[in-house]
Amino acid sequence: MERQALQDAIKAFLQEDIGRGDITSEAIFGEQEFGKAKLVARQDLIAAGVGSIAATVFLIQNGRIQTTRAVEDGKAVDAGDSLLESEGPVVDLLKAERTALNLLQRMCGIATLTRQFVEKVHNYDVRITDTRKTTPGLRLFEKYAVRVGGGANHRFNLTDGVLIKDNHIAACGSISNAVTKIREEASHMLRIEVETDTLEQVKQCLECDVVIIMLDNMNLETMENAVNLVNGRVLVEASGGVSLKTVENIAKTGVDIISVGALTHSAKACDIGMDWIEEGHL
Amino acid sequence: MERQALQDAIKAFLQEDIGRGDITSEAIFGEQEFGKAKLVARQDLIAAGVGSIAATVFLIQNGRIQTTRAVEDGKAVDAGDSLLESEGPVVDLLKAERTALNLLQRMCGIATLTRQFVEKVHNYDVRITDTRKTTPGLRLFEKYAVRVGGGANHRFNLTDGVLIKDNHIAACGSISNAVTKIREEASHMLRIEVETDTLEQVKQCLECDVVIIMLDNMNLETMENAVNLVNGRVLVEASGGVSLKTVENIAKTGVDIISVGALTHSAKACDIGMDWIEEGHL
Amino acid sequence: MERQALQDAIKAFLQEDIGRGDITSEAIFGEQEFGKAKLVARQDLIAAGVGSIAATVFLIQNGRIQTTRAVEDGKAVDAGDSLLESEGPVVDLLKAERTALNLLQRMCGIATLTRQFVEKVHNYDVRITDTRKTTPGLRLFEKYAVRVGGGANHRFNLTDGVLIKDNHIAACGSISNAVTKIREEASHMLRIEVETDTLEQVKQCLECDVVIIMLDNMNLETMENAVNLVNGRVLVEASGGVSLKTVENIAKTGVDIISVGALTHSAKACDIGMDWIEEGHL
Amino acid sequence: MERQALQDAIKAFLQEDIGRGDITSEAIFGEQEFGKAKLVARQDLIAAGVGSIAATVFLIQNGRIQTTRAVEDGKAVDAGDSLLESEGPVVDLLKAERTALNLLQRMCGIATLTRQFVEKVHNYDVRITDTRKTTPGLRLFEKYAVRVGGGANHRFNLTDGVLIKDNHIAACGSISNAVTKIREEASHMLRIEVETDTLEQVKQCLECDVVIIMLDNMNLETMENAVNLVNGRVLVEASGGVSLKTVENIAKTGVDIISVGALTHSAKACDIGMDWIEEGHL
Amino acid sequence: MERQALQDAIKAFLQEDIGRGDITSEAIFGEQEFGKAKLVARQDLIAAGVGSIAATVFLIQNGRIQTTRAVEDGKAVDAGDSLLESEGPVVDLLKAERTALNLLQRMCGIATLTRQFVEKVHNYDVRITDTRKTTPGLRLFEKYAVRVGGGANHRFNLTDGVLIKDNHIAACGSISNAVTKIREEASHMLRIEVETDTLEQVKQCLECDVVIIMLDNMNLETMENAVNLVNGRVLVEASGGVSLKTVENIAKTGVDIISVGALTHSAKACDIGMDWIEEGHL
Amino acid sequence: MERQALQDAIKAFLQEDIGRGDITSEAIFGEQEFGKAKLVARQDLIAAGVGSIAATVFLIQNGRIQTTRAVEDGKAVDAGDSLLESEGPVVDLLKAERTALNLLQRMCGIATLTRQFVEKVHNYDVRITDTRKTTPGLRLFEKYAVRVGGGANHRFNLTDGVLIKDNHIAACGSISNAVTKIREEASHMLRIEVETDTLEQVKQCLECDVVIIMLDNMNLETMENAVNLVNGRVLVEASGGVSLKTVENIAKTGVDIISVGALTHSAKACDIGMDWIEEGHL
Repeated sequence: MERQALQDAIKAFLQEDIGRGDITSEAIFGEQEFGKAKLVARQDLIAAGVGSIAATVFLIQNGRIQTTRAVEDGKAVDAGDSLLESEGPVVDLLKAERTALNLLQRMCGIATLTRQFVEKVHNYDVRITDTRKTTPGLRLFEKYAVRVGGGANHRFNLTDGVLIKDNHIAACGSISNAVTKIREEASHMLRIEVETDTLEQVKQCLECDVVIIMLDNMNLETMENAVNLVNGRVLVEASGGVSLKTVENIAKTGVDIISVGALTHSAKACDIGMDWIEEGHL
Repeated sequence: MERQALQDAIKAFLQEDIGRGDITSEAIFGEQEFGKAKLVARQDLIAAGVGSIAATVFLIQNGRIQTTRAVEDGKAVDAGDSLLESEGPVVDLLKAERTALNLLQRMCGIATLTRQFVEKVHNYDVRITDTRKTTPGLRLFEKYAVRVGGGANHRFNLTDGVLIKDNHIAACGSISNAVTKIREEASHMLRIEVETDTLEQVKQCLECDVVIIMLDNMNLETMENAVNLVNGRVLVEASGGVSLKTVENIAKTGVDIISVGALTHSAKACDIGMDWIEEGHL
Repeated sequence: MERQALQDAIKAFLQEDIGRGDITSEAIFGEQEFGKAKLVARQDLIAAGVGSIAATVFLIQNGRIQTTRAVEDGKAVDAGDSLLESEGPVVDLLKAERTALNLLQRMCGIATLTRQFVEKVHNYDVRITDTRKTTPGLRLFEKYAVRVGGGANHRFNLTDGVLIKDNHIAACGSISNAVTKIREEASHMLRIEVETDTLEQVKQCLECDVVIIMLDNMNLETMENAVNLVNGRVLVEASGGVSLKTVENIAKTGVDIISVGALTHSAKACDIGMDWIEEGHL
Repeated sequence: MERQALQDAIKAFLQEDIGRGDITSEAIFGEQEFGKAKLVARQDLIAAGVGSIAATVFLIQNGRIQTTRAVEDGKAVDAGDSLLESEGPVVDLLKAERTALNLLQRMCGIATLTRQFVEKVHNYDVRITDTRKTTPGLRLFEKYAVRVGGGANHRFNLTDGVLIKDNHIAACGSISNAVTKIREEASHMLRIEVETDTLEQVKQCLECDVVIIMLDNMNLETMENAVNLVNGRVLVEASGGVSLKTVENIAKTGVDIISVGALTHSAKACDIGMDWIEEGHL
Repeated sequence: MERQALQDAIKAFLQEDIGRGDITSEAIFGEQEFGKAKLVARQDLIAAGVGSIAATVFLIQNGRIQTTRAVEDGKAVDAGDSLLESEGPVVDLLKAERTALNLLQRMCGIATLTRQFVEKVHNYDVRITDTRKTTPGLRLFEKYAVRVGGGANHRFNLTDGVLIKDNHIAACGSISNAVTKIREEASHMLRIEVETDTLEQVKQCLECDVVIIMLDNMNLETMENAVNLVNGRVLVEASGGVSLKTVENIAKTGVDIISVGALTHSAKACDIGMDWIEEGHL
Repeated sequence: MERQALQDAIKAFLQEDIGRGDITSEAIFGEQEFGKAKLVARQDLIAAGVGSIAATVFLIQNGRIQTTRAVEDGKAVDAGDSLLESEGPVVDLLKAERTALNLLQRMCGIATLTRQFVEKVHNYDVRITDTRKTTPGLRLFEKYAVRVGGGANHRFNLTDGVLIKDNHIAACGSISNAVTKIREEASHMLRIEVETDTLEQVKQCLECDVVIIMLDNMNLETMENAVNLVNGRVLVEASGGVSLKTVENIAKTGVDIISVGALTHSAKACDIGMDWIEEGHL
């Protein structure tokens, strides 16, 4: 993630939670009172955003806060394990706490769920990807968490990938026409992906410059037929309502990519808290 | 929600999803092609953000889009029901679609879960509130969804409510000292709330100017004792790991407020999609 | 004050005064010419904003400027006393000078006037507060100056305090109805204040959940009657056209709070200047 | 004033006063309740900012508010006169009220004081100007109020005017050297002004390309001598601690310009209030 | 171009040129004086940015300005032809004039030069593209002008295209290693392009998943050999110092794409002026 | 240039070129890989923006990058000479490269062209100035390059200089009326410039308070007559289509100032590249 964008986002998040100050803590703690606290996993989880995000939250709140990462992003962590230690003015640790936790809980939640999907299909040569069903304002954070969890990213936004859907096909009369029209306009550096509902459409894709064929909400049998039809000439992506229960059977069909909206729209926040190690007056 | 803040947030969300444009749709649809589409619930849910948020997303994307709200926020909606109709340039409906859905799915998810909590305790004189465990950047949206679902809001941020916690008490030596210190500094328009772990602390609160006593992670028996001890003199709030399974028993103890982090950190996104009603050339 | 908000405001103020550069000083002084200057009180005053604000102005203009605070905020200073020494590139001292002075003159003016009010009533158990009659864009700075002067802050904005006024009462039919309506909607962490014009209204307040009763533009006798009526059950606030001449008599009536718009809308800027201690070439 | 800059400033001012909403009024008034109110002078004053600023505040808060200006900027208004009528949603009139008043009170205060200075010298061919001693963030508003009051503006910021002061002269060795150095660097479209402390310095100015000679804190006699010395060849500006008491005698010396910091740093806010004309449900 | 990004950029450009106002025109023209003016080509050129950009500049300056496009983007225009008519307040036409012209002159310059390149190679099946050698802050505008001129866009920024250069190859040990590493990390929706200096490198590209081979600064003979080697299996792009003199011979080698930095870094501004049609008082 | 404005502009330029990251380089280089590179002139040129701009680009991209300036702005540089060395993380050198080069190429182009104009007239007492025909968003950068090249700046924007043109004269009835009107409104610190088309207009200027007379698109003979007419009483500026071919003859007419739009609107970007000195792992 680019530093600048990351920092701007975190400043806004801190501002949202702190407002014009922590009226309780500022009334009680002076600027000279220092403390040390750690963020602790209260459940098993995959770490995501520890060093890059949570530590930055503390640092942006006050440049004098020192942080020590106890675990690298992507590692499995047990309940009770420490993720990050932070040391600095008590009042700033308290002000940054909630924002750091809210981000971390969500990112670890996504990484943990992604890892579960990835493990379900580890015997298959298939890539688990996210979708654009992310939380508004957090796409950079959530797509990073997917990668940390072992998944891959689908297109980030509507600009950096061509995906021809039913409306586009209808408007152009055929897949082939749509592809031709796009090829004239779009950068030569992009591949073209088409969303298909039927084997007939899959066939049409194979007759023009389509490099990824998305099978949208097809049943397992149709997917398998599609994979056979394609026979390795282009990439095949399964999409639509994929769950931990269904993902392995989908992988068995031989698709190359499985995109899973649930990675970001249905991941539960992990339980993480902040415990104090010591407080004192410097 | 103040118009300005709402609009600025939505502009940023649209920008995140659209980037420099929808390269697929712009290559295919001209500015003169109009369409009509509806957002449809694909599960039972409580509507939240339909007229105020989703409609605004379409309007900000293009002021020529007309929207018609099919349901008011707070109403229960069945799977298959329409939430909002939007009519305007196809290319802008497609550009706004994902952002509108991502916001709506999350907000309806929160309202729906909040309604479930509220219904569990509808026989008790108790208020269900949210916490600060919200998604960074979305607090305004999520706290609104909680209200729509029938819940109430706890403090929005660290500025607009005094909540004395264990660190504060420890630093001041006693609850009474902490309250005195806060009373000197804070606005006379704020009540003071204290987080307590024991009945002894509850007693101490009753001896000073505390108007809300939070019972933090107490078991049901201790909560009941606390309520009896307080005997209606001040407000009592239960907090800590409240779930749909436990909320009714907590309400039975006689507390006035139950704050539930799960409302915002663990609500599942509702399933909502966009269906096309017609497309044509104006 | 939160660092981020403070710094953003000061950057904008410097930009307003400097524009695209100090064409006079930049033509004459090189980047290597250093100087030392002090901000000096040219009248007796109460210091406000010296270390926290004026020093930050210099620091934001150029991080190489060193500042030494000669006095703490809240202290009484005599004409001729130094407030702050700044040492660094001459060109940047000159660029920051006017902004630092303009802020300091206003803040010291407010603190000095507030102190005068506070001293007038120091024999009474009463709190002097500000109002929302502040300079647009400077509320954070001006409310801080009020605190430094010994006053307290009333609500910061329309969000962080409930104040029921005549329109609200009229719209609801009665004070009691208005209070009930607010209590349903507002956070349980806020007290309710009502603005009253008559003793009859004061009585009505006592019959519902009102914790602060504002006596709006009442004469001294009515105020005294109101205080007797309330008899310590809730807080009483006097408001409306309070001046240095009238404040002591108002305090004598026994009110708990006196809010004074003049603290911010009529404080005269204090006379403060910048004197050079030395200039030279490093 | 450029629309864009004006609107951005007013948006920020409204946000400062409203925060996340007016919790009192929003709980009581629905969006359909309309009202009509007027801003009324509670003292004699010179109108400034009525149609251009106060009306814009209401319009920015809600585009549905209709405003009617009762008086043009620059006109003398009696206590009791209406300045501006506003009609629209009650809740938005209440939200915009304080910001509109705070700006208007300050601007009318400055225009009123400026008019007093201007009238004191109306028998002399002299221009009253402001200085850079303005409120940070409000310079555009305050300099406009000075013009409305009949004064003229000195340079807006350090970029748009050359003013050679003692440090600059000292650093260059002489006025003549400083002027030469500036002439090489600065735009040919700017005149050069020099701040002088002695008649000797005035003489030096006359020997080089100086078009405005500022007499800094000189007594009346020296000023008169300076004016005689200059003899109409260039402009002469009096500056330093000018008050309503001293301004006429200064004008008598024959100077062309009198700059008065007090116009902006010591103007008292005018007393202006908002009265309701009617409230109702549309 | 997305409306929001376009409008934000244009607002900033207008602010840069107007500052706090047009002091000359505002002193002379009242708000009621209307005029009509046209932007006129003073040389033959290809129109670019007329309706989409220049008209928007006038509209953003004042929403009351009416514009009528006299020519569509991409059309060839003769010296003397009108491009755009604008009618509205004289003062706002004058304020918007320079910004509209500065943008239009640059955009038409780029489109005109692009068209010259495109016409040189119109007998060949080759695509002329731009590079990232654009003016900072104007990439959206300049890449649009290239398309209008008949060219195509290369990647917009470092995020939306993979281009492996010599450093990357050196760091990975071989082209094949670099491609493998990228394929693991990058989105499956992107093609991989590699910059090559020798035929040996071209061969290596053909052995791995490279879809575009850039021939960097090769002579014509080597390019032709490269094209023969590739034999249509992947796309071949010529790059490096391409000029109007060399472009046709490069096209003859059979490459698919010729990228030309000169389109944006060396296009001369076209000569365009604003002529008044009528001025009057409404 | 003010640091803040400069840094904000450069941040935006970097963001434009980098987007959400350099997907190629980030996949290949770790954060620990350091390199050293230099910006090298590939043609003879006048250096502009090396230490102040290009170095800042690298520093803003990553504060750990060390830069060493090889040449001062304004110096003539030969093809092959190094301009700036930068050392730091490879990935950040690659991310900053294009933005640094795009700015530098343009700035050096302007300085180089300006120097050519200045040298053509070095035997005459005349000042070469720019105009407002600059690239939108880059005016600060381009006007700085003109100064570095030996030219001077005309007014920066419409606020900081009075320039009366034909519309203004027509609206006021005469030059004299226009000047009077402006003098009443404008700051006393500004000189008045008038654009003239005929000798008759030049005469009219001499009869009122005009300090600079612009001769707009006059032929050499008329210019010479105008200069004789003015006879040194005020400044004379030649303007309109000035080129390297015509500039010397214009200077011979005796004008004081020659303003040249071509300096900024027609300067060709200089050829500058980045060469690697070493790469390694720290």
